[in-house]
Amino acid sequence: MRATLIHGPRDVRLEQVPDPTIQRPTDALVRVVASCVCGSDLWPYRGVRPTRQPRRIGHEFVGVVEEVGADVRTLRPGQFVVAPFTISDGTCVHCRNGVPTSCVHSSGWGGDDAEGVFTDAGQGEFVRVPLADGTLVAMPDTPDRDLLPHVLTLTDVMGTGHHAALSAGVGPGSTVAVVGDGAVGLCAVIAARRLGAERVVALSRHAPRQALAREFGATDVVAERGDEGAAAVRDLLGGVGPDQVLECVGTKESMQQALDTARPGGQVGFVGVPAGGPELPVQQMFGSNVGVRGGIAPVRAYIEELATEVWSGAIQPGKVFDLVLPLEEVAEAYAAMDERRAIKSMLLP
Amino acid sequence: MRATLIHGPRDVRLEQVPDPTIQRPTDALVRVVASCVCGSDLWPYRGVRPTRQPRRIGHEFVGVVEEVGADVRTLRPGQFVVAPFTISDGTCVHCRNGVPTSCVHSSGWGGDDAEGVFTDAGQGEFVRVPLADGTLVAMPDTPDRDLLPHVLTLTDVMGTGHHAALSAGVGPGSTVAVVGDGAVGLCAVIAARRLGAERVVALSRHAPRQALAREFGATDVVAERGDEGAAAVRDLLGGVGPDQVLECVGTKESMQQALDTARPGGQVGFVGVPAGGPELPVQQMFGSNVGVRGGIAPVRAYIEELATEVWSGAIQPGKVFDLVLPLEEVAEAYAAMDERRAIKSMLLP
Repeated sequence: MRATLIHGPRDVRLEQVPDPTIQRPTDALVRVVASCVCGSDLWPYRGVRPTRQPRRIGHEFVGVVEEVGADVRTLRPGQFVVAPFTISDGTCVHCRNGVPTSCVHSSGWGGDDAEGVFTDAGQGEFVRVPLADGTLVAMPDTPDRDLLPHVLTLTDVMGTGHHAALSAGVGPGSTVAVVGDGAVGLCAVIAARRLGAERVVALSRHAPRQALAREFGATDVVAERGDEGAAAVRDLLGGVGPDQVLECVGTKESMQQALDTARPGGQVGFVGVPAGGPELPVQQMFGSNVGVRGGIAPVRAYIEELATEVWSGAIQPGKVFDLVLPLEEVAEAYAAMDERRAIKSMLLP
Repeated sequence: MRATLIHGPRDVRLEQVPDPTIQRPTDALVRVVASCVCGSDLWPYRGVRPTRQPRRIGHEFVGVVEEVGADVRTLRPGQFVVAPFTISDGTCVHCRNGVPTSCVHSSGWGGDDAEGVFTDAGQGEFVRVPLADGTLVAMPDTPDRDLLPHVLTLTDVMGTGHHAALSAGVGPGSTVAVVGDGAVGLCAVIAARRLGAERVVALSRHAPRQALAREFGATDVVAERGDEGAAAVRDLLGGVGPDQVLECVGTKESMQQALDTARPGGQVGFVGVPAGGPELPVQQMFGSNVGVRGGIAPVRAYIEELATEVWSGAIQPGKVFDLVLPLEEVAEAYAAMDERRAIKSMLLP
């Protein structure tokens, strides 16, 4: 089959690799129907995170079950499934606590699974899925082409935006600011509104993203950053910072923006993958009583709930895909996001 | 009158200072009936925080209103009052949001108030209290000698322990660990239990404090620290870390202990004054989804609720006072806490 490998900065290639097969009785074999490029894929693409040797890449995909191992109980061939961006058994205490990202048998796509068996990544044609009962979620039907992008966001960005909003404690009547206008930040706008936020201020300086933020329910847009940005948000909210700030970037600057923008006693929900490990200023948090909660989003725990609204059309997060390419143009899918020509790229094998 | 000044490391003195008087129509003059030494007073006492010039010290006191300014509406001479450890107007948006520590007219004891007028500190005989309506809370009566220490904890440590538990999200059925066996940590045990925690593990290696923790409702005590401490807590809780960890010390080590002890998806409630500004490891928080929330405790917002239980005898946080001295022995009150001969020292003018 064909699958994507990253070789180094700005060097991703579609190559021939071995066809995956069932290796364990709890495996499923999935034919990928759509995959996409994640903002976090850009960290190795840009060289912010080193690529020591060529490796498979991609952790967001949906597809059709081709075959299941003997111990798989909840899935059957022909079902359309969503794969969250981490693998989990669905039964351990952390999975039961709603944190499948900390599953005792957790692993990721494109590396060895918990048993040491290589697992394919998502930007390819087929994937061997370990712990299929715990990991995959079957959809009620095969989505048509219009619904497909919305369903695809359930693998990561919609669930990650939801995690930011949940972690920050967004609820009815909340005032919220969203730092980051990438796909996750835009999905966080949707998430905040569906949890009942009354005001959602999107921090964005890019007209198409501002427009999409408003379409997703943002009540206000602020283009300024830094102290000016925090002041502009306060001005919109009657002189007080928002109850919650959703940090959807992962840089030191974006986290500082979030901490400086929240009102005293507020909370930052963070889901941006920390790039380069900026540490949090505990003295500032102590003085302002602004909490910080979040992390790698346990999207597996959210798929069922969010899928219901995607299938009903209540939310349309797939609008974040403004570029659709065949898998053989994966290099362009990355380049367009890297150069901010695209918010998010979808790949069709 | 006589009041305490700190001159430098291990040098506190009771000295003659000017008698305070009403300076503003919103002031009250309070005769101190009892005050005490805070764990955070030990930072300048130990030289961890520099003392550039001699200054008044002490921010925990209760007493009787002697006189009120013309604009004071809720207090009258003769009332017994509790003073929280920060001054606040009680009317601004942050006060209304339950964060009086971020009051727009906030100030502290022993320095200039929001109008630039000097305010006495608590370890003395009298205190001019600015913004008296917002700051002070009248008790239903004058407490007798047995009740006095319990009421005195409402100025800081009981409310601070409560803030740790609230910030961490302790609720019915919670499993909790408490890092720190000082007065705040011990009060945090009380707070966790009254919020419904099912298991409360106190981390303590001092027999008298272990005993008091158990008296306050700790179900378990762990003497180990570091990785061994975290492992010992997990062993007690069936192999999983606690839902919440209450950080009541303020050092880099204690915060790390808290982060390492909480289960994935858990939360640290922190109230230890960060000494030396240890920053929080955001990568660890991202990977484990352990949140950190807390800070300087808005105890003013908690006094009424906690006072009800102190007056009914439902909670007895004043047991943290294991040393009672006359004000002229204030130096010994500090030394005993510094040398860990006392958990907490109470001073009677």
